[in-house]
Amino acid sequence: MAGRTGLWLIGARGSVATTAVCGLAAFRAGLVPATGCVSERLDLDPAVFPGWSELVTGGHDIVATPLAKRAEDLADAGVLPGWLPSAVAEDLRAADREIRQRFDPAGSSGPQAEAAGQLASDIVDFRRSQDLDRVVVVNVSSTEPPITPLPEHADLDGLERALAEPGRPVLPPSALAAYAAFSAGCPYVDFTPSPGLRIPAVTELADRRGLPYAGCDGKTGETLLRSALAPMFLARGLRVRSWSGTNLLGGGDGANLGREGRAQGKLAAKTRGLAALLGAEATAPLHIDHVPDLGERKVAWDYVSFEGFLGASMSLQLTWDGYDSALAAPLVLDLARLVAGAHAAGQSGPLGALAFFFKDPLGSEEHRLARQEQELAAWADRIAVAR
Amino acid sequence: MAGRTGLWLIGARGSVATTAVCGLAAFRAGLVPATGCVSERLDLDPAVFPGWSELVTGGHDIVATPLAKRAEDLADAGVLPGWLPSAVAEDLRAADREIRQRFDPAGSSGPQAEAAGQLASDIVDFRRSQDLDRVVVVNVSSTEPPITPLPEHADLDGLERALAEPGRPVLPPSALAAYAAFSAGCPYVDFTPSPGLRIPAVTELADRRGLPYAGCDGKTGETLLRSALAPMFLARGLRVRSWSGTNLLGGGDGANLGREGRAQGKLAAKTRGLAALLGAEATAPLHIDHVPDLGERKVAWDYVSFEGFLGASMSLQLTWDGYDSALAAPLVLDLARLVAGAHAAGQSGPLGALAFFFKDPLGSEEHRLARQEQELAAWADRIAVAR
Amino acid sequence: MAGRTGLWLIGARGSVATTAVCGLAAFRAGLVPATGCVSERLDLDPAVFPGWSELVTGGHDIVATPLAKRAEDLADAGVLPGWLPSAVAEDLRAADREIRQRFDPAGSSGPQAEAAGQLASDIVDFRRSQDLDRVVVVNVSSTEPPITPLPEHADLDGLERALAEPGRPVLPPSALAAYAAFSAGCPYVDFTPSPGLRIPAVTELADRRGLPYAGCDGKTGETLLRSALAPMFLARGLRVRSWSGTNLLGGGDGANLGREGRAQGKLAAKTRGLAALLGAEATAPLHIDHVPDLGERKVAWDYVSFEGFLGASMSLQLTWDGYDSALAAPLVLDLARLVAGAHAAGQSGPLGALAFFFKDPLGSEEHRLARQEQELAAWADRIAVAR
Amino acid sequence: MAGRTGLWLIGARGSVATTAVCGLAAFRAGLVPATGCVSERLDLDPAVFPGWSELVTGGHDIVATPLAKRAEDLADAGVLPGWLPSAVAEDLRAADREIRQRFDPAGSSGPQAEAAGQLASDIVDFRRSQDLDRVVVVNVSSTEPPITPLPEHADLDGLERALAEPGRPVLPPSALAAYAAFSAGCPYVDFTPSPGLRIPAVTELADRRGLPYAGCDGKTGETLLRSALAPMFLARGLRVRSWSGTNLLGGGDGANLGREGRAQGKLAAKTRGLAALLGAEATAPLHIDHVPDLGERKVAWDYVSFEGFLGASMSLQLTWDGYDSALAAPLVLDLARLVAGAHAAGQSGPLGALAFFFKDPLGSEEHRLARQEQELAAWADRIAVAR
Repeated sequence: MAGRTGLWLIGARGSVATTAVCGLAAFRAGLVPATGCVSERLDLDPAVFPGWSELVTGGHDIVATPLAKRAEDLADAGVLPGWLPSAVAEDLRAADREIRQRFDPAGSSGPQAEAAGQLASDIVDFRRSQDLDRVVVVNVSSTEPPITPLPEHADLDGLERALAEPGRPVLPPSALAAYAAFSAGCPYVDFTPSPGLRIPAVTELADRRGLPYAGCDGKTGETLLRSALAPMFLARGLRVRSWSGTNLLGGGDGANLGREGRAQGKLAAKTRGLAALLGAEATAPLHIDHVPDLGERKVAWDYVSFEGFLGASMSLQLTWDGYDSALAAPLVLDLARLVAGAHAAGQSGPLGALAFFFKDPLGSEEHRLARQEQELAAWADRIAVAR
Repeated sequence: MAGRTGLWLIGARGSVATTAVCGLAAFRAGLVPATGCVSERLDLDPAVFPGWSELVTGGHDIVATPLAKRAEDLADAGVLPGWLPSAVAEDLRAADREIRQRFDPAGSSGPQAEAAGQLASDIVDFRRSQDLDRVVVVNVSSTEPPITPLPEHADLDGLERALAEPGRPVLPPSALAAYAAFSAGCPYVDFTPSPGLRIPAVTELADRRGLPYAGCDGKTGETLLRSALAPMFLARGLRVRSWSGTNLLGGGDGANLGREGRAQGKLAAKTRGLAALLGAEATAPLHIDHVPDLGERKVAWDYVSFEGFLGASMSLQLTWDGYDSALAAPLVLDLARLVAGAHAAGQSGPLGALAFFFKDPLGSEEHRLARQEQELAAWADRIAVAR
Repeated sequence: MAGRTGLWLIGARGSVATTAVCGLAAFRAGLVPATGCVSERLDLDPAVFPGWSELVTGGHDIVATPLAKRAEDLADAGVLPGWLPSAVAEDLRAADREIRQRFDPAGSSGPQAEAAGQLASDIVDFRRSQDLDRVVVVNVSSTEPPITPLPEHADLDGLERALAEPGRPVLPPSALAAYAAFSAGCPYVDFTPSPGLRIPAVTELADRRGLPYAGCDGKTGETLLRSALAPMFLARGLRVRSWSGTNLLGGGDGANLGREGRAQGKLAAKTRGLAALLGAEATAPLHIDHVPDLGERKVAWDYVSFEGFLGASMSLQLTWDGYDSALAAPLVLDLARLVAGAHAAGQSGPLGALAFFFKDPLGSEEHRLARQEQELAAWADRIAVAR
Repeated sequence: MAGRTGLWLIGARGSVATTAVCGLAAFRAGLVPATGCVSERLDLDPAVFPGWSELVTGGHDIVATPLAKRAEDLADAGVLPGWLPSAVAEDLRAADREIRQRFDPAGSSGPQAEAAGQLASDIVDFRRSQDLDRVVVVNVSSTEPPITPLPEHADLDGLERALAEPGRPVLPPSALAAYAAFSAGCPYVDFTPSPGLRIPAVTELADRRGLPYAGCDGKTGETLLRSALAPMFLARGLRVRSWSGTNLLGGGDGANLGREGRAQGKLAAKTRGLAALLGAEATAPLHIDHVPDLGERKVAWDYVSFEGFLGASMSLQLTWDGYDSALAAPLVLDLARLVAGAHAAGQSGPLGALAFFFKDPLGSEEHRLARQEQELAAWADRIAVAR
């Protein structure tokens, strides 16, 4: 037995978190197979990696809407089956009890160190009261806009001095969450493209504490496809001339990303990934539009124009129609298990072997899906062997 | 130097063969880069594998249209650049001189052994007159319908007795071509889904002569995509419920496959490949339609319906718009180089390491494109090392 | 007031009928707007055309599943909102009471005249017991395969002699239903491509009784699109070279049409319509596949290849993703109102002005959607004026 | 006979103009049918409307590239058949002789009145030297960005005072072209979304001179489709919730529209048209991207999310793949004939009956393609009758 493991969700009442909590409850009750979960396909050593029944959820959110209400909304939107919310109602109530409502620290007038201390203390209390061996913190909150680097972001000592000053929002919320997680001795996963783990001073804390972390930005749709398909063109010697994309997003993330500036981080990560995959420049216009009537769905259209033998012009079109939360939630559960195993096995620093899960992987230059899958499997095997 | 190598094309005046001959001439003249050629990306040992300048083409066809005329048609259809046919006119005339017009042996009243002897003798003459170290025979002629197995197909001795009887068409043309190639001591590649290499008595001849062979059915479009994408669904634990496909083909192959029965072999191979990739049953209706106005183009539409976390229903659509000949021709040139190297290195039997090229690979159960790519690269490396 | 009007549904427990009954109940209760109903957009004279509150439903079916159960299934499949079945439960029970279970008359050993008499008597009883001014019979049962014309189909006297013979299934069910409707003095609408109204002897009965009728095959998806788009190409002088189509159908109709022969009638009607629209021959391969996992959805892909100025090759692709029942049901309700009005106004014979609703319109050669819309509106206006 | 008619093209060496001139030459020589020409389908009175052989072309451009060179480029890009440029070489040389190279008047230091006088004088010279009954001026130059209205745009007298001042670019080039055309007594057509005809002082000149004009922005692709399809949704009572679009443009227009600000006018016109068609607000994100490798092609993807009966969620996707010049050029020739006829018949002001041709029609509120087609036909008939 790997021991009881906490999954602490930043954005614990959002669509992804709610879907993950519902799914975990359904797995534990044996109501559904773990479709969409990658860890089910790996040969994980149960002494290192926790099973579904060993996971306990908690988290932070800025809103107070009960999970049961959120689950009903997701069922109406087609993400969850209609019968599920009532079947897992008791689990949702239990999960609700472990969610702490905390507001955006940037809005506070006190020093950010205090806010971070409060967040860390919530996680420590959760670990203690639930008698957990460890807690993995996963950020599934709304995407933040890119930040302008500050001198205080360069090293931990400078950062901590700045955090101690009142009224100075030196870190964006995602970075404060990562800082708090590491302070509490917990591994941290950023499932969003927010800047948290891109700040050297923050990951310096993880290094000092010997903690593993992983990110950034869960690979759940268009980029997943691209990482499966771009290697096909390369393998066949076909030259991609342009890869144009449009993403139509309903729901909360769509509204957020539709706001000026918010999508920049995500667009930049996608474009970096594509260039890395193609190993060359290609015209790659990319848009994210908020289309509220799509509800929880995300529709992505890609048009790939490529050149073959003797310059022949050919094309491939893709339309992906998925539920973002249904694609993300199982990966969040997978990451909780895998990062818990990494922590149990004493790994620290960026977990490049988890590149498979991310648009913009930390600790890895590999963007090809099939290679990422092989690296993940080899890593999981090695951890079992190494124990 | 690997030595001068012949590429003998069955269907030497067809679109694929003409495109390949034009491309080879353009490569040799340094007019274009070898876009679409896989062998360019492999680290091939030049002592084993012939280079572009070491390849000489010849072949059989039932028609006599000059290659220059076929090249003009292909340029009008957008497969070749308009300037190319005149730029390589001299090469096309040289290639024309090495094409022998031979008719469908099933139409002859003599024993098929005689027809086979004629075909083999054409190849031997080509090898001798062009002073070639070896000749690789590649079938790029029209797809034949599936055949009913005969008792004479079971072993070579029985087959040869039947071939000696006058007026008995015991082998379809593709199998007679393979038989003739092996008789002439040449490796053979079937780039079509025709039954040639599926007849045990025919491959028994290859085994007796210690010859390598490869096939079947070049993977150039919809199946290429499927072999890149189906592993993505598996890797992510997503359950494919149905994968529906429609292929619209112009050109000669479309007209042929539109005929009753002709597409059966191709459809069966595609469906086998998909089931192998998904590792499970999925509804998979598939159509091939002849749409003459598409000219040399092929438009394929795939609709994948899949299930994710907690049963969420999602979909992916693909539209592939390509020139079949432009996709096939570079692979034919690659196969000439690679199979020549295998022969030079003394390999025999089905070359499973070339599964990367085929819809229905002989000697391999691997259908996943990325794995096939790795196996191909490893095989090419080993041949160099083993020498 | 137009008076109480019956809508008698053949296939009254099918998806289309159940959706129509649920919708009618929801309209009457003011729960939803009449989205998808064409008659709402027409300026109908309420003295001639019944309103929603004046419609009463009944019908025949071969199964006994309660409408409430069917409505739950349709809600699970996304056709109906989840809250609807319970909100209209009382109406569904009332509708259930007016559905008579009658089996396929072809399976009976008695004369078909008896079966027809039973069907007609059911309708007459419904009219009398519900105190209705008139009853419109609409066929929404499963599509039948095309039939071989018999000599008895040519005139009514011959038909009636044949119907009187025991054990002779001279009419397919759709035609027997039409015959019964006309016998009961009711107008009849065929919303399917079944052969009922294509039999001269059957429509001779309508003529003798002075009854109006309309059909065939509700235009709800791919053909609707074609009738809107084909005129665009014509209007712009663009030459359509090919119009290829693939229909993926889940649900009951998909299973039925997937069966050998069943889709022939539908495919033939679609192809006739396209040729009429384009006014010229075009390559037009068309498929209907049964893909069960699509549930109640229907996904249609069309690829139009067309030629413009100086022969330029261009294309249009369409993917339609709809719920067949949600598209058909409002039209069934519209037809009940409109055909009731035609009957009230004394019209008889094929109602060509209703071509707007049908793939293969009776009494009209007009296939262009915009013109059909204008003819429908003009017809509805004239009826009001003529009264 | 309608008399010899000039077609004076602003942007006479651009892709649209070159394609139009090539096509006109090919029609006159009987080399190809007039596919893509709308006027061929109308029953035009030859005494009013000029035939192909009565049209003579000339125009302005800022570049000097010979038409023969431009035609070769267009043939390479697939817009023109390869054989055409040489077949019409003599006509292209003749057309070249009637093109005057004039630079952007905004770059000049003299008063704009002088530049306008020069442009008008070029047109007058063309009319006189070619012995033409009339000249229709059509703007097919690059799209200009929207302008800020100036007080001088409000009335003609104020405008003319401002034009007389040196170094004041009071009018953008499109407006100066329209002003010059009207000054020369010529009808004017704006085939672009440039602001020319939206300036009251400019159209006041047309009114004073009793001249007809037409515009704006030729309807050649995505908007053409929308004007055919949006009425379908309305006719069926289906509620469009969102209509999202992405346009990928190669070629010169793509590069121009990709520049900051240039696409604004076009995007605004498209959005206005869609709102008018739907009669209601719908989410309608829209993008224009420059994708150079598409050459002269334009690929547009539209995703329509709509609501049917009882709120059912459905969708339609469209992908349009066309050559912008091949779609625009025949309409330019049509407009030359039709506007010449209007002028001959004494019509003046905005020709609303030509709304069929434009994204943002002047003098008409009708955006539905089928109705526009009917209005055009009725107008053409009336002109014949009225004569």
